Order: sequence, then structure tokens, then C-alpha cells
Amino acid sequence: MRVAIIGAGQLGQMLALAGIPLGLQFRFLDRSADTPGGRVAPIVVGEFEDPAKLLALAADADVVTFDWENISASALAVLGNKVAIHPSPQALATSQDRLLEKQLFRQLNIPTPAFAAVDSREQLREATRSIGLPGVLKTRRLGYDGKGQFVLRSEGDIGKAWKALGAQPLIYEAFVKFTREVSVIGARSTGGEIAIYPLSANVHHNGILRHTTAPYSHRSLQQQAQRHLRRVLRHFDYAGVLTIEFFVVRGRLLANELAPRVHNSGHWTIEGAATSQFENHLRAILGWPLGSTEARGHSGMVNFIGTMPEAAPLLRQPNLHLHDYGKSPRANRKLGHCTVVERSAARRDARLRKLLK
Amino acid sequence: MRVAIIGAGQLGQMLALAGIPLGLQFRFLDRSADTPGGRVAPIVVGEFEDPAKLLALAADADVVTFDWENISASALAVLGNKVAIHPSPQALATSQDRLLEKQLFRQLNIPTPAFAAVDSREQLREATRSIGLPGVLKTRRLGYDGKGQFVLRSEGDIGKAWKALGAQPLIYEAFVKFTREVSVIGARSTGGEIAIYPLSANVHHNGILRHTTAPYSHRSLQQQAQRHLRRVLRHFDYAGVLTIEFFVVRGRLLANELAPRVHNSGHWTIEGAATSQFENHLRAILGWPLGSTEARGHSGMVNFIGTMPEAAPLLRQPNLHLHDYGKSPRANRKLGHCTVVERSAARRDARLRKLLK
Repeated sequence: MRVAIIGAGQLGQMLALAGIPLGLQFRFLDRSADTPGGRVAPIVVGEFEDPAKLLALAADADVVTFDWENISASALAVLGNKVAIHPSPQALATSQDRLLEKQLFRQLNIPTPAFAAVDSREQLREATRSIGLPGVLKTRRLGYDGKGQFVLRSEGDIGKAWKALGAQPLIYEAFVKFTREVSVIGARSTGGEIAIYPLSANVHHNGILRHTTAPYSHRSLQQQAQRHLRRVLRHFDYAGVLTIEFFVVRGRLLANELAPRVHNSGHWTIEGAATSQFENHLRAILGWPLGSTEARGHSGMVNFIGTMPEAAPLLRQPNLHLHDYGKSPRANRKLGHCTVVERSAARRDARLRKLLK
Repeated sequence: MRVAIIGAGQLGQMLALAGIPLGLQFRFLDRSADTPGGRVAPIVVGEFEDPAKLLALAADADVVTFDWENISASALAVLGNKVAIHPSPQALATSQDRLLEKQLFRQLNIPTPAFAAVDSREQLREATRSIGLPGVLKTRRLGYDGKGQFVLRSEGDIGKAWKALGAQPLIYEAFVKFTREVSVIGARSTGGEIAIYPLSANVHHNGILRHTTAPYSHRSLQQQAQRHLRRVLRHFDYAGVLTIEFFVVRGRLLANELAPRVHNSGHWTIEGAATSQFENHLRAILGWPLGSTEARGHSGMVNFIGTMPEAAPLLRQPNLHLHDYGKSPRANRKLGHCTVVERSAARRDARLRKLLK
């Protein structure tokens, strides 16, 4: 079977590394051949929305999927009914727009922080009054890793926030005092089978994921997350892996955002779960049976951001699994990660503390 | 770091799949681009002993290693001191010749079945008298997966055996009534660090490995195997993974052969050990710290030989890890394998019985 992937970053590379042992063949589309994906499979080099490049990518493919979801549904229309596209362009479109995303959560009775659309400075002022301060003004589109966000702490910030982000569709959200950030990752196959991983607990700095521990064992939260995730998966008649990030507020989950793809907070599943999120994404979009999402031990994942540590000293640590994406260093760029799997949460946490020093 | 691999079969592919996450870059040399390795990294297409091809393979490489060990030390001489070669050509040369191999075992006080060199029909007759019947006549070179072997059961077989295999250097070995076949796999780094996996118990049909279970927990045998393996590793000042296959006879190990590389009986380490044999081979030849060889649960590995089963029905089985090498089917050809990891040996054995039906 042939899998075409739009985007050849580390997520695409890890999809291919999971799929090659299953006998799958991969092809990527990305703007540069010098990408993590391009080192493990052939790559079509070009713009993501170039019809000729999309057709070249999809030629002979059994399914088209994504490492990068910010491609317009209209650009994908060129593929017509020639090839299956999973997840669906509709799910992508929703995930691309923070307002549509929040409206979907509301429609599906999934709690969210208070939010309001903002298209003018006046609407921003109104939103700060109705929702309150502090709050976060965000671009509706193309925000990731903390980009396109402005925290307002007082009325005096309204002008600065508008100057920083105005003149594009925005959303204002209540600033949530959360006790924890968690994510739920699950797969739904084209046949409707669903498999959901245990919760990941995530720590962000400046909007970028720094480290994750899993499983985050909390029965009520796990149940809430699964209920919410199932609703979204069914709503889209979804195929593939989908991630929802939540804030935990007084024992309750508030949905922050969804990602229609494998997710950084699920990298621990490579060594820490019976089946990785990458393998399950492929099994889901091919209509194959899903693999067990059971955790094997207690995992901790640490992102390497901006600089990549040397391999040998790290590998001196027992049971440490290194992932170097082979990218050139740049400030705030995710260059790799490592995962430790321990027999107890306490040992895992001790390992993490040492790694984060 | 750049790793050049001579041979691009499934072993080479699995080395690359283990090394890409470590940030390593790979290049292969093989006779065809349509090989498992050639699907995950660039490949130089040519004869293994072609000096120009070997130089092209090794250009810019930090280390040269092997997926296929039947290359002559003299051919490798073209690489001179330009690049590190691990394991050493000397270890390769010994493994290529069943007589040198057995003589080395004897020199290192590692018990073997009785054996004698055979270069004439008369020597064969003498060997059957001194060693006894039944026995196995084997070519000294280029035998693998049961090829180049003839079992003699009575004096009447001497003529047939000679006709089948004569006119090349041969070895006659006592036919061993073993209770079990086991292998020990271990790595030694360029810095001299040694890490040894728990024993694998192997079942062959017609000289081809069919299935493996591990860990084969037997304290005395494990100790014997580790002692023997350490002697061989130190003898060669070896770097990389080395495998010794043994017969178990009345609680004692008799060495059958060695392989200066990762081994089919160690495929279970991908999912069933803290660090796979492939990752440890790379860490060893790069002089990096070795990873833990501890087993995670009880693994069973089944080879797919001649025909590759369909993926989806197999993946319906829980916790089954599929490896399809993407090779075209051919009688007696290893096309893939699968591994199951269970919490108990009894459960693992039940899974294996079902898989082997």
C-alpha cells in the first residue's frame, strides 16, 4: 500500500518509520527536500497548494494524509475522488480556525473557556468586558507553538493587543487558571473502530510543549476526555489520529484546541505504548484493525528546542530513547525529543527532573 | 554521523530504521536498488567487492559496517585507513569459514561438536570413522540457511555426500542430538563496553530459522553463553553485535556457528528488549554507550518464509508487531516476521502456537 503525506517534518518522518515495517511505501510533499521525511522516503518538492505537485504526490497512492494540516480544503479539491484523503478536509478546516473549533466544541457539548469572535477593536473591548480580564487574544488561523497570541491583563492592553494582531480574524478567550494541561489522543479507523490512549500531562513554556508525562492516571478526567474525543471523531466520520488539548480546571476538562493528526504530546507512545500513535494513524486511515493503546510503564518525554544535545552523553542514561530529527538548530525550533520509560511514576518523575536540569 | 552498510537486506533496513531516530545518516551498497535498505536510504548499486563502489559507499562515512558478511578482507583493503570498519575484517574472515570458526572456538575453550577438515573423499571416510555416524558434511564457505549441507547416516552415504559437495573445502561434524538450539547476542563497543541479551531459543526447519522465543531463562546456560561470547568478543577486539548459535546437549552448550552481525534470532529485541540489537550495533560501532539489553516481557518471533501473510487479519491479533521487508515472494525466502510480547511465557507460547498453525 502507498501512503502520500502532505508535509515532511518530524511527524511525517515518524509516520514513515512506523509504516515501513508494515510494508507500506511513502511519498512526501514539502517545500524542501532537506526535511526529516525526505530522508526516509521520496519527496515531491513544491508548494503545498500547487495542484500539479499535489497530483504528483498522490499518483498511485492509496491514501493521502497530513504531517501539516494548514492546507485549504479548496486546494485539496484537485485530488477529487481519485484517492482517499484522511483525515477529511472538513476536519482540517475546523482545526485551522480557532473560532470554528471552539464553536464545534460548544455544539458537541464539550466545555471550553469563554470565547468571542473579534473582528474590530470595539469587539475586542466588548469581549474583555463580557468575558473579563485577563484574557488571550489569538489569531483565528495559522497560530501554533504560541505564535499569534497576546495576553491582555488590563484594559490598557487593548490598544497594544490590537496593534500586534489586528486586521485579521481574531478570537478572544478567557485566561484560564488551570491546574494542569492534558491531551487525549485517539484513533478512529475508516471502519469506525476507536482506540484511545491514556491521557498525557503536558507542560508548555512560551506556548511550546516542553515535556509530557503519561499515562496521567485520573479516572474521571480520562472518562471525560474519551467522551469528548468520541464525539469529535464521530462528528467528522473521522479516520486517523486526532488530538484534543484540554485545561484541567477544578476537576473538569475545558477544551483548548484540536489537532487532526499525530501530536507531539503522543511521542511517548513510540516506546511507552503497545502501539505508537504513528502506527495507529496508518492502521486507521488504511482501514486496518487498530492496535492496543495500553501504556507499558510510565513514560516521560522531553522536547529538545533550539539546540540538540550530544547523543553519547544522553545515551549513558539507562533506558533513554533518543529522537534527533536531523534539523538545523534555530531558536524555538523543535529539533528532537527523548523518552524515558520507568516502572513507576515516581522513578519517571525523578528521571525527568534530572533531564530538565 | 554517517554509517555506510555493505548489503541492503532486511538487516540493513532494520539498522537504518533504528539509527535514523538517533540522527544517523545511512548509505548502502548492494547489487540492486530494489532492496529493503534501498527504500529507506540512498544506495550505491554494484558488486560488493568492486573497489570503486566500495569507495563510493564509504565516501564521507564515519564507519563502514555489514548487513552481509561474505565479503573478502582483501576487497575491503581498498578502504585502507580512510574509515573505521566494524566488525573487523578478521572477524568476518573467521565467520566465513566453518573450519576457522570451529578452530577458534576450540582455541578459546568453547566446546563444539566433534569436527574434522575434509578435502578428499578419503578424508571424509576417515572423518566418519573417527567422529562417527551420523554426521553432517558442510561446505566451509558460503553456507547459510541450511544450504551446502549433507547429512550422512551410514557409510553408504559417503559417495553421495562427496558427489553433492566435493571439490571444495569441506568440514565434517558430528550430528548432535540436541535438546534445544539457542543463540546468544551481544554487543561490544569500540571502547570495550559489553552488553549481552538474554538467550534466544530457536527452532529451525530445513536449516532456516522458523521461530524464536526469548528470554530463554536458564541461569547456567546463560552464564556459559556469556562466558563464551565474551571470549570471542575480546579475541577480535570486536566492535558491534556478534551472535553465537549453540546446541544444548545435556545442560551444556556446544557452539555451532558465529555471525559477526545482528541476527534473525534477535529480531524480538525490537519490541521485546529495552534497546534493540540494531540500535546497540550502531551504538557499539560509533563508540557510544550501549543500551540496556533487558527483556520487556516474554517475546515470540515468527519468520514469514516464502509467502507473506496479509497485514490486516494479522493485526487483528492484540500486541502483534508486523515486519514486512517488502521483498518479492520466493520459496525459502525470508519475507518478514512478526513479534508478540506477553506478560508470561505461557501466554507467549499459546500465542505462538496459534500463529504457527
